[in-house]
Amino acid sequence: MLQYAEPIRELIEQLETLPGIGPKSAQRLAFFLLAAGPERAERIAQAITDVHQRIRRCSECGNFAVDELCPICADTDRDRSVICVVAEAKDLMALERAGEYQGLYHVLDGVLSPIDDVGPDELRVDDLLRRVEELGVSEVILATPPTVEGDATAEYLRGLLGGRRGLTVTRPALGLPVGADLDYADQLTVARAMRGRTEMTD
Amino acid sequence: MLQYAEPIRELIEQLETLPGIGPKSAQRLAFFLLAAGPERAERIAQAITDVHQRIRRCSECGNFAVDELCPICADTDRDRSVICVVAEAKDLMALERAGEYQGLYHVLDGVLSPIDDVGPDELRVDDLLRRVEELGVSEVILATPPTVEGDATAEYLRGLLGGRRGLTVTRPALGLPVGADLDYADQLTVARAMRGRTEMTD
Repeated sequence: MLQYAEPIRELIEQLETLPGIGPKSAQRLAFFLLAAGPERAERIAQAITDVHQRIRRCSECGNFAVDELCPICADTDRDRSVICVVAEAKDLMALERAGEYQGLYHVLDGVLSPIDDVGPDELRVDDLLRRVEELGVSEVILATPPTVEGDATAEYLRGLLGGRRGLTVTRPALGLPVGADLDYADQLTVARAMRGRTEMTD
Repeated sequence: MLQYAEPIRELIEQLETLPGIGPKSAQRLAFFLLAAGPERAERIAQAITDVHQRIRRCSECGNFAVDELCPICADTDRDRSVICVVAEAKDLMALERAGEYQGLYHVLDGVLSPIDDVGPDELRVDDLLRRVEELGVSEVILATPPTVEGDATAEYLRGLLGGRRGLTVTRPALGLPVGADLDYADQLTVARAMRGRTEMTD
């Protein structure tokens, strides 16, 4: 019979609710936090509390922010003629990590999903249309994920945005991941990579 | 350039200090905690704080406890004639999970390690000798880890405990892990398994 003291059991149960943390990892983390001493554990607990007390959503793009505007919307060096639409703020971070894109973003807060009762009213679609008008952007990149729901959401938004004069609507390329073995890629990815092949130039 | 808001960066940095949590996992956990909402994040933060405020060491065996005695030392059904010596409280938990052992424990708080300046005075050795006398135990199982330091610690304790009348000093068997392929076990483990082979009986 396993007799954890109640606060340890509670901590393990809480840690198990985190993504990618199974029962074994949760136990290991709990004992690490115990062994690490109260000051270090308190810093971690404080960081978890702080992130909710100090983080809000950017009033423009919906990214996480400390102030009214997120660092990207507040950055006057960013190209305000392009908006890249993403499903979640973490997708925005993934794009920033890539370091390729210099325009603005718009976080939808999800994708259309009839099964989960997520329609256009649950997403930040009206805000997107308002910003496209106000900023007079020349390109909207629909970077919702390459899934059934993400594709449907991109199609829906293209329908709303299409036909505006001087506005191009694009979607990121699909293809093989850099450095991946062709052999390991799934059939759909290989098919999309072949269909989207580009001419090699000098 | 990657522009995380400061409280998110702080949370990611704190999470990265945890064992088995790399930069990617830390980012994923941070965004999960943000998306999970303040109540759920607060429960996790509270569990981390509580575990230090409410957990102390058992005055007898050194296991984690809420009260003066841990649940095992307080359990009158446990066999008080056997003490199993472990390096850390988490090893005790691993033994409890196995469900095989019904005696008491003694947590050393480490193993002898000249490199890390850990000598007998840094370990709970005096407490162990006192308990062996007071309880009049008939067996001490030295379950320090099967490493160079763990073996040396076990040898050292055997020297201190040996020669007491009516006291047997033992060490858990070394051998192949249950369910493992012989092919995948390291040479030392295979050698120890062969040396420690036991006769099959009907």
